Amino acid sequence: MADIPASMTAITIEGKGGPEVLKQSTIETPKPGPGQVLIKTAAAGLNRPDVMQRQGTYPAPKGHSTIPGLEVAGEVAALGEGAGRFKIGDRVMALVNGGGYAEYTIAEEPCCIPVPEGIKLEEAAGFPETFFTVWHNVFARCHLTADEWFMIHGGTSGIGVTAIQLAKAFGAKVVATAGSDEKCDACKKLGADLAINYKTEDFVDKVKTEVGKAGINVILDMVGGDYIAKNIACLGDDGRLVNIAYQKGSKAEIDFLRVMLKRLTITGSTLRIRPTEVKGAIARDLEEYVLPMLADGRVKVVMDSTFPLADVAKAHARMDAGNHIGKIVLTV
Amino acid sequence: MADIPASMTAITIEGKGGPEVLKQSTIETPKPGPGQVLIKTAAAGLNRPDVMQRQGTYPAPKGHSTIPGLEVAGEVAALGEGAGRFKIGDRVMALVNGGGYAEYTIAEEPCCIPVPEGIKLEEAAGFPETFFTVWHNVFARCHLTADEWFMIHGGTSGIGVTAIQLAKAFGAKVVATAGSDEKCDACKKLGADLAINYKTEDFVDKVKTEVGKAGINVILDMVGGDYIAKNIACLGDDGRLVNIAYQKGSKAEIDFLRVMLKRLTITGSTLRIRPTEVKGAIARDLEEYVLPMLADGRVKVVMDSTFPLADVAKAHARMDAGNHIGKIVLTV
Repeated sequence: MADIPASMTAITIEGKGGPEVLKQSTIETPKPGPGQVLIKTAAAGLNRPDVMQRQGTYPAPKGHSTIPGLEVAGEVAALGEGAGRFKIGDRVMALVNGGGYAEYTIAEEPCCIPVPEGIKLEEAAGFPETFFTVWHNVFARCHLTADEWFMIHGGTSGIGVTAIQLAKAFGAKVVATAGSDEKCDACKKLGADLAINYKTEDFVDKVKTEVGKAGINVILDMVGGDYIAKNIACLGDDGRLVNIAYQKGSKAEIDFLRVMLKRLTITGSTLRIRPTEVKGAIARDLEEYVLPMLADGRVKVVMDSTFPLADVAKAHARMDAGNHIGKIVLTV
Repeated sequence: MADIPASMTAITIEGKGGPEVLKQSTIETPKPGPGQVLIKTAAAGLNRPDVMQRQGTYPAPKGHSTIPGLEVAGEVAALGEGAGRFKIGDRVMALVNGGGYAEYTIAEEPCCIPVPEGIKLEEAAGFPETFFTVWHNVFARCHLTADEWFMIHGGTSGIGVTAIQLAKAFGAKVVATAGSDEKCDACKKLGADLAINYKTEDFVDKVKTEVGKAGINVILDMVGGDYIAKNIACLGDDGRLVNIAYQKGSKAEIDFLRVMLKRLTITGSTLRIRPTEVKGAIARDLEEYVLPMLADGRVKVVMDSTFPLADVAKAHARMDAGNHIGKIVLTV
């Protein structure tokens, strides 16, 4: 570890509020503990929870770094005790427990995935959060299978672009909703069979017309609020709804009769608080089933933009504005 | 089929309302079609859907008999084309698509289960509906496993007494709610670890105190209404709630944040409308896993009372009154 400096640049959150509370600081470089690796961060992906953490509504869980940043890519710089899978210098991407907005990031070894040749580290940095989330919720929890209908709200968000691609890659038919015709076009280019501009069309009506009576089999939703009842209306027999956020609120009045008569499953999950073994199991699934698709281009990390770490406030302002399509990534 | 009369006695529903709308009628004896058997009915179990059908709120599904009665036991009297599993005279119990309140009942062969030696046909008639329902919802849909906590509301109903026994037989810990101290005692005698009189105690508080922070793993509910939110409050991480009826209504305002943070599964199902292959698959599971327990007494059909077919109005009045513990059965 001779070439690792004792201190490093990292982004800290000073107070709570807009992008201006993100400050560049110099802090001690962390040391990897047992089962951990230290990554020399080449790039870090932005995610909605980073914004919520900045706003003070989603504090880092106990024991996690208070530095924002839930996914990084870079080269392995140091190995903790018992972390034997990778060598110094290996290119990895990782889902991390915070700390990604920094020159060096601690990752649990099971949460690291090798970066395939030909994939840039700034793309790789945009892989973990959305692919872990979509894989776990859509495939592991909701068992989406080939020829089923899948619906995703916010089709051009980081989660959205990953969900459209993965569902298509595994043979499902995809409905995406988005807030502009331009975003709908982007969803279709990614493979969506049907893209609905929710500002000009009622997605429940449109699904009834276009998908038909059989309905949707699996819905991944981050919106909540009145979308919960609308999602239930869109689902067909044995349909599954999974929420990973409730941007319009989590309270809703529901008629559960439809849940019984259609034998629906309503569930949800949040990845951040799960233990390393759960995240590691997802990582192994991704390596087995999805990494070959990333390597040969069947799925890709859809890049919206990159910003140098020093311009983190600009990067957050872009996410706040909501006009991005795909991942916003910080380069270190 | 020489000894089968051309006409038979059956109970028909004349109008809608109280037990007085149930009339004894003489109708044509049905003939078994392909894959069906004709059962000489010895006894027929009463179920809540029979009451709802009588009241006009739950009409028989299209293609099903309009004669009430969803479960019977008796001897095989005739075989339809291709129905080769049983012989004339075999003792069987069956989940049927209506028609049970009659001297002869048509059953789909896959929905028939042999009656173990030593089990009376009037007990066997009370087996199918609750055991099919509890098995499918608690074990097949909600994957209750040994050492998990299971909760059932209405612990002395037909479903309740079966659910308590089956959950205990498979090693789970059981909470039952019931509406009197006498009913709570009955639940405990059947094996419930904790019985809560919901008229004198708040079951959410009691579960928090007695089960502790880990919460309940699986809840089978027929109540709905305000119980939906209360059930969600009782469930622990990865808990599952399945509703098979909504006696207090199916509409409820829910905070789904708990669904996401605890990774709950909320589902429901109704057995009556499912195709024969689904019911047949449940029947095979019951034969494999539960019939040996019925044969050796580890689980039993808890009998409340029997009434001759001619006294069907009295039997329904007893179910309406809600003071029964276990199954009410008609003998033919």
